[in-house]
Amino acid sequence: MVDSNYREELKQYIPFWDKLSSNEQEFFMNNVLDLKYESGTTLHGGDDDCLGLILIRNGTIRTYMLSNEGKEITLFRLNEGEVCVLSAACILDSVTFDVNIDAETDCEIFLLGSTAFAKLASSNIYVENFAHKIATERFSDVMWAFEQILFMSFDKRLATFLFDEYIKIKDKDNVIKLTHEQVAKYIGSAREVVTRMLHYFANEGIVEVSRGGIKILMSKN
Amino acid sequence: MVDSNYREELKQYIPFWDKLSSNEQEFFMNNVLDLKYESGTTLHGGDDDCLGLILIRNGTIRTYMLSNEGKEITLFRLNEGEVCVLSAACILDSVTFDVNIDAETDCEIFLLGSTAFAKLASSNIYVENFAHKIATERFSDVMWAFEQILFMSFDKRLATFLFDEYIKIKDKDNVIKLTHEQVAKYIGSAREVVTRMLHYFANEGIVEVSRGGIKILMSKN
Repeated sequence: MVDSNYREELKQYIPFWDKLSSNEQEFFMNNVLDLKYESGTTLHGGDDDCLGLILIRNGTIRTYMLSNEGKEITLFRLNEGEVCVLSAACILDSVTFDVNIDAETDCEIFLLGSTAFAKLASSNIYVENFAHKIATERFSDVMWAFEQILFMSFDKRLATFLFDEYIKIKDKDNVIKLTHEQVAKYIGSAREVVTRMLHYFANEGIVEVSRGGIKILMSKN
Repeated sequence: MVDSNYREELKQYIPFWDKLSSNEQEFFMNNVLDLKYESGTTLHGGDDDCLGLILIRNGTIRTYMLSNEGKEITLFRLNEGEVCVLSAACILDSVTFDVNIDAETDCEIFLLGSTAFAKLASSNIYVENFAHKIATERFSDVMWAFEQILFMSFDKRLATFLFDEYIKIKDKDNVIKLTHEQVAKYIGSAREVVTRMLHYFANEGIVEVSRGGIKILMSKN
């Protein structure tokens, strides 16, 4: 439970706030927790897990599929100000799959537990619609990810990934601080394949591969 | 526009019927068309197409992704009594991707055109929620399809596909009447790969491959 200081902040995440009765607003406030997760920890672990609605105050979470053999495929990432509903899949009949969710950086979140969320969603159509709408947005993210994986050649996928990481770099050194293993995981490939293609890119003068990461040699415009 | 004889039939497709005002119900009835599509024709052709809400009276439609190079990946099929909302993606902000939709068999549908559907969805939260909920159900279908494609080995995928087709066979001959080309298209593979694996299955005594199709040699229990 959070105190009333958080009220204004919470309202920003949920467009349905004004559609809640004052009782429902109080219920919401009384059932929200503020939690912290360290980088690398698991928020939601696939089968039968049902955390609830996650509102990201800061940090990045990564949602991915995990095969029985341990193969991971990243579906999408969510950042500050965004809401995750697949962590409350158990209360949506229409969601029949499970995903895994990790904190990719240190994260602070608000959590509306699944029981409280279920209660609001069943009593208020705007809450239910919000959940389905957010799920549909994630559907779009997932379709984008699968188009990359299934239709795009590997060199294009890797280049697209590196470019997306590159534009997020805040340091002046232009280095993407990820191991080849991590890159492989994010784009659903194997480390050896990533390493081989990075060497190819290095030969082309596009990147410089070092212990510290992958340095992009183009200038940022 | 359909006449009032269709009213009871239409109501079965849409759980929000009782949430519509009588004006909205009339508007719905006045804007529904009954259409027929022949097997193999395209209902909805990807980019910028926006047919509207499809209610399937009979037949099967197939929704698939299409790459620039013409590669197809089947996402899901819908049958009698089911509703397709991705054919009205243009009116849902949360859907940012396009799909293709073909009639896989001769089909009869009711169509609520996208303009009429948009009007109802913007005035009635139950209609909007229905659209998002149906989209979320398709999200689940698509996740299932991608798990098959990305995590399942090819022999298991082909066997699963054949089994799904097998249990749909109504004739006593146990023959799946599809070409290798069609099977390849449905499971997102190449014809040569399908042919090779079918010969392997034939050698194992699981199937018998002939001009007319793929005969399953197990008995149906």
